[in-house]
Amino acid sequence: MAQKPSIPKGTRDFGPVEMAGRNYIFDTVKSVFRKYGFAPLETPSMENLSTLLGKYGEEGDKLLFKILDSGDAFAGDRIESSRDADGNINSNRLSLKVCEKGLRYDLTVPFARYVVQHQNELAFPFKRYQIQPVWRADRPQKGRYREFYQCDVDVIGSRSLINELELVQIVDEVFGIFGVNVLIKINNRKVLAGLAEVCGHPDKLVDITVAIDKIDKIGLDAVKEELSERGLDAAGIAVIEPVLTLSGTTEAKMAAMRSVLSSSETGMKGLDELEELFGLIGAAGVRQEVEIDLSLARGLNYYTGAIFEVKAKDFAIGSICGGGRYDDLTGIFGLPGMSGVGISFGADRIYDVLLGLDKFPKDAIRGTEILFANMGEAEMKAILPSAKSLRAAGRSVEIYPDAVKLRKQFEYADRRGVKYLVIAGSDEIARGTANLKNLSSGEQKEVALDNLAEEL
Amino acid sequence: MAQKPSIPKGTRDFGPVEMAGRNYIFDTVKSVFRKYGFAPLETPSMENLSTLLGKYGEEGDKLLFKILDSGDAFAGDRIESSRDADGNINSNRLSLKVCEKGLRYDLTVPFARYVVQHQNELAFPFKRYQIQPVWRADRPQKGRYREFYQCDVDVIGSRSLINELELVQIVDEVFGIFGVNVLIKINNRKVLAGLAEVCGHPDKLVDITVAIDKIDKIGLDAVKEELSERGLDAAGIAVIEPVLTLSGTTEAKMAAMRSVLSSSETGMKGLDELEELFGLIGAAGVRQEVEIDLSLARGLNYYTGAIFEVKAKDFAIGSICGGGRYDDLTGIFGLPGMSGVGISFGADRIYDVLLGLDKFPKDAIRGTEILFANMGEAEMKAILPSAKSLRAAGRSVEIYPDAVKLRKQFEYADRRGVKYLVIAGSDEIARGTANLKNLSSGEQKEVALDNLAEEL
Repeated sequence: MAQKPSIPKGTRDFGPVEMAGRNYIFDTVKSVFRKYGFAPLETPSMENLSTLLGKYGEEGDKLLFKILDSGDAFAGDRIESSRDADGNINSNRLSLKVCEKGLRYDLTVPFARYVVQHQNELAFPFKRYQIQPVWRADRPQKGRYREFYQCDVDVIGSRSLINELELVQIVDEVFGIFGVNVLIKINNRKVLAGLAEVCGHPDKLVDITVAIDKIDKIGLDAVKEELSERGLDAAGIAVIEPVLTLSGTTEAKMAAMRSVLSSSETGMKGLDELEELFGLIGAAGVRQEVEIDLSLARGLNYYTGAIFEVKAKDFAIGSICGGGRYDDLTGIFGLPGMSGVGISFGADRIYDVLLGLDKFPKDAIRGTEILFANMGEAEMKAILPSAKSLRAAGRSVEIYPDAVKLRKQFEYADRRGVKYLVIAGSDEIARGTANLKNLSSGEQKEVALDNLAEEL
Repeated sequence: MAQKPSIPKGTRDFGPVEMAGRNYIFDTVKSVFRKYGFAPLETPSMENLSTLLGKYGEEGDKLLFKILDSGDAFAGDRIESSRDADGNINSNRLSLKVCEKGLRYDLTVPFARYVVQHQNELAFPFKRYQIQPVWRADRPQKGRYREFYQCDVDVIGSRSLINELELVQIVDEVFGIFGVNVLIKINNRKVLAGLAEVCGHPDKLVDITVAIDKIDKIGLDAVKEELSERGLDAAGIAVIEPVLTLSGTTEAKMAAMRSVLSSSETGMKGLDELEELFGLIGAAGVRQEVEIDLSLARGLNYYTGAIFEVKAKDFAIGSICGGGRYDDLTGIFGLPGMSGVGISFGADRIYDVLLGLDKFPKDAIRGTEILFANMGEAEMKAILPSAKSLRAAGRSVEIYPDAVKLRKQFEYADRRGVKYLVIAGSDEIARGTANLKNLSSGEQKEVALDNLAEEL
């Protein structure tokens, strides 16, 4: 009868300790988002498959979790009409006949869908943050899960670069609170497009960005090889190469790029935007390091302007935030021309960084502060008012529920990380007192029950 | 190309206003849960179907959302081997072959699964709260959704009635903060079992509880009719009838019940537990009204001791909290004898109650407090430090991103519920000042930019 319980591969339980850490991260980012006027949004876990399909590329479509229609999903000729010419059942075709809904794959497409669906009720520019789980049928491996939280902040309906600035300020402020040194890398997709133009392959923008996106991982020579495999000639690669190895100040990089891209209107526009954004960053003042990284491409193809990526300086884990500007996110749902910009915080990786650098505040795990030992029914009733008044004062209080051996109650206090144990036997109760034991110092004293709040 | 976007029936988007209300509810209950030593837990949205099936009755099994296996779900003989004797495909059999996982149906079964799986790491009694969405393929209708949040608080591993007391105190405190008057109804499943015994139908406990659970909805006569249809004889119904219409003080009800149930050991045990719990409630002091309701049965069959239900006194909406004690929740997963007690807050209904009674605090919607009008690029750059120092002081600040007509910026401020508009044109900037407009009073004055924080 009894089953050995387990959970699906790639999913996780979050017990009290993990929850405390994650809540610390989410509470922190939310408090910063709110200070910049971003408001919360939540969308359903299920979207119609028609909303999701075709938005994440062919590979993404395969990674969507589909939900079997309720009721008689296989009724009628759904199975028979899903045969290929060779008479075999086409799994993919059948799955689309028996599944109308799928689980959210990211927060961006549901956000676009929401904006279009509610466009007449919203005040634009619309600034929202969204912190919800997403699901991907990826092969599970270390650090990659089938269910994980995304934490997105976007503004849609404004082309001003102040929006880019504010995202940089938000990143700056969040990691300032976390006490983590980060490097905020910025590029502009128009610069990459300009680069594709001047190296004579304007059609190969995607190939070029996919290749140079890998420079940190595979190095310069491998990127050059990949560019060649993707059809770039030696002259084109010669144009790109120095860009990948630019160094020096922002001004020096900008000047070098202006001479490389001088023949590309798009490229020069991208450099203008970068220059303006860095001007704003200078005017606002940002504490964390911000740099132009012209090799920064990011995978997704819908970015059209600024591109961001954030890395922890003192912990090797890859990018912990990323985002950029997109010009036509809502077009696919019938609302063209809405420009927006957003950034996504990688909660799982940030958790690992804070844990690895020991940056979680000691009180992030808000455990129980005070435990009343249970010395019997009469004694327990006598201390109920004390527990009540401590809670009224905002303290976290437990009464050990069963009158078991004190040793067992101590063990529980220890495992739960309780700070103070209050022990009131019948003698103490008769005197109106209790023994107050500080479990970290070991110090113990008898105090009046009425003075408990002040003593703690 | 463009699709008209929509969401699956029975699901909802939560925009900024709904989110603010819901966050107020969740933040409030969490703060109270923590004061009683409950810690947060989250489990995966997907569980193995083997974990879920058979736990919610036949009807519940049908309402589970199943997730199609990723990859080639229909490979091999899965379809062919799902034919009934008549050669037709058995939808249910096939669905179990192509779906390994299902969406969480409630928080109780995943909690039980978690406790069993992690029993060696947990300190018992284990006190957890869990606030997550659940999914049910119910027919959507007003107030019934296919995705909705549950908010559960449970303690497992202790039989002490202090746990029941603390749940009553939590309910008392939560609705005290909300400013909502509630009636907390308490019964004990053992009393119902005793009643079944003394009316000569110990085997009909479930029939009796299902019938009398409906008394509020269908009235006494219809309940008697249903009891008769469910096989109770007139003598048995005559025993039950006065219990359904008991009135007077808790003491009077208890005395009457003691005489009815005197021949049932189980029934008397239930009355003892009720008496002890009311004694504890009296000793602790609870502000909201608490009463014994011997007609309270609740649908679920796993309760074995106390049963709770909470109703708003000034708003008709049915029960807004409910729960009880269970003795063997984890047995099905191989860990017998773990007694626990829990209660669930109905977040959707509580939202409706707070909205209906106008009990959401005015500042629950933490919108933007201060909006800087955008008067052009130079002016905007000049006010960046002011915006920054206001945010550093914890204020919520926006800079309107585009230098559009002031009328449009006013409109935006109005729709977003902004409190103060700061307008600094080139003249004001030259003087180091800004016009500060209070949007609710209409009052406007020129203040030094450096004094903005103090003026607000």
